[in-house]
Amino acid sequence: MTDIIELLNWRYATKKMNPAKAVPEDKVERILEAIRLTATSSGLQPYDVLVVTNPEVREQIKAIAWNQAQITDCSHLLVFAAWDNYTPERINMMFDLTNDIREFTNEGWENYRQRLLKAYPARDAEVNFQHAARQAYIGLGSALIAAAAEQVDCTPMEGFTPADLDNILNLPERGLRSVVILPLGYREEDGDWLVNLKKVRRPKEQFVTEIK
Amino acid sequence: MTDIIELLNWRYATKKMNPAKAVPEDKVERILEAIRLTATSSGLQPYDVLVVTNPEVREQIKAIAWNQAQITDCSHLLVFAAWDNYTPERINMMFDLTNDIREFTNEGWENYRQRLLKAYPARDAEVNFQHAARQAYIGLGSALIAAAAEQVDCTPMEGFTPADLDNILNLPERGLRSVVILPLGYREEDGDWLVNLKKVRRPKEQFVTEIK
Repeated sequence: MTDIIELLNWRYATKKMNPAKAVPEDKVERILEAIRLTATSSGLQPYDVLVVTNPEVREQIKAIAWNQAQITDCSHLLVFAAWDNYTPERINMMFDLTNDIREFTNEGWENYRQRLLKAYPARDAEVNFQHAARQAYIGLGSALIAAAAEQVDCTPMEGFTPADLDNILNLPERGLRSVVILPLGYREEDGDWLVNLKKVRRPKEQFVTEIK
Repeated sequence: MTDIIELLNWRYATKKMNPAKAVPEDKVERILEAIRLTATSSGLQPYDVLVVTNPEVREQIKAIAWNQAQITDCSHLLVFAAWDNYTPERINMMFDLTNDIREFTNEGWENYRQRLLKAYPARDAEVNFQHAARQAYIGLGSALIAAAAEQVDCTPMEGFTPADLDNILNLPERGLRSVVILPLGYREEDGDWLVNLKKVRRPKEQFVTEIK
């Protein structure tokens, strides 16, 4: 098999990145593709990914993210931004796209569209946003493995003020809210306190329960 | 590189599984390991995975999950169950485990423990649960790729009544709440309406925004 376990053991939350070493564009493209292709609930893909390379914008982001150096030392900062709500337009967009790509319509599928149109927009926007945000984390899980497969380092980060990041990136006008960010770059082993420390996970017996 | 893109293109939300074909235990183990090893916020691993093979329990679960046949046709049903809250005990457990494994304590790390102990337990349980639930979705993203690497089919499912599933699995007494389930098995191509349809994703230009 493709050794996913080995990739997961290789990766770690990089604390110090080498600002002089940029991730090649083809690697970034494949990491983005691994996010785009993974699953989301009902296939709605209720989030966008922003790729921030602009240095001034990254300085602004660092200032609202505990001054974490990876934000400016990385070469590409990914921002996962979830839909702020499920609207009929957004739901119809994905169902219409499905019909376009598959070149047919189907009664079961159209009934499912109606079920979502009835259920989702009627819920609180906050409930819908929380649901959309979870889907972005599937993409994050995909990105972590894809980056490792490219021998690219990254650091998942929630330590920022989402409302401030939203304003920096003009997300409200697009109906998006930031949920998690992921700098992509290369580890600088000198000065990274975590690079040589053992990975810590609960042992399997404490993490998995079998119901036989 | 390890071809993650190919794995993601191979996988799909399997609609019909072959009840006569069980996933070998070593494959299940590696899929669970890919969940256990991926990242979580502050390394807290705020969720458990239950592996349900018991047929009667799976029948009960199917009844509160729109009677989706994969729940009983699969050989192993994974249930991702997030912590219902962040408590001092849970936070200390992970920081103590870290010190045990790394065989030293560190002032920066202990300060970080105190920061979490001050911030997390004081928040609403629901806020903490929502945060923990997101982490489980990173594990789901990892599982989808790991299953594909094993040529094992799976179907991420949110279509069940969490409170009912929690009761079936006695999760409340363990301080856990179910968030998503993942049957593992093998596709039965006859009778699977989705198996030969094109995967639908928004094109990259509509999913990714570059801020240069």
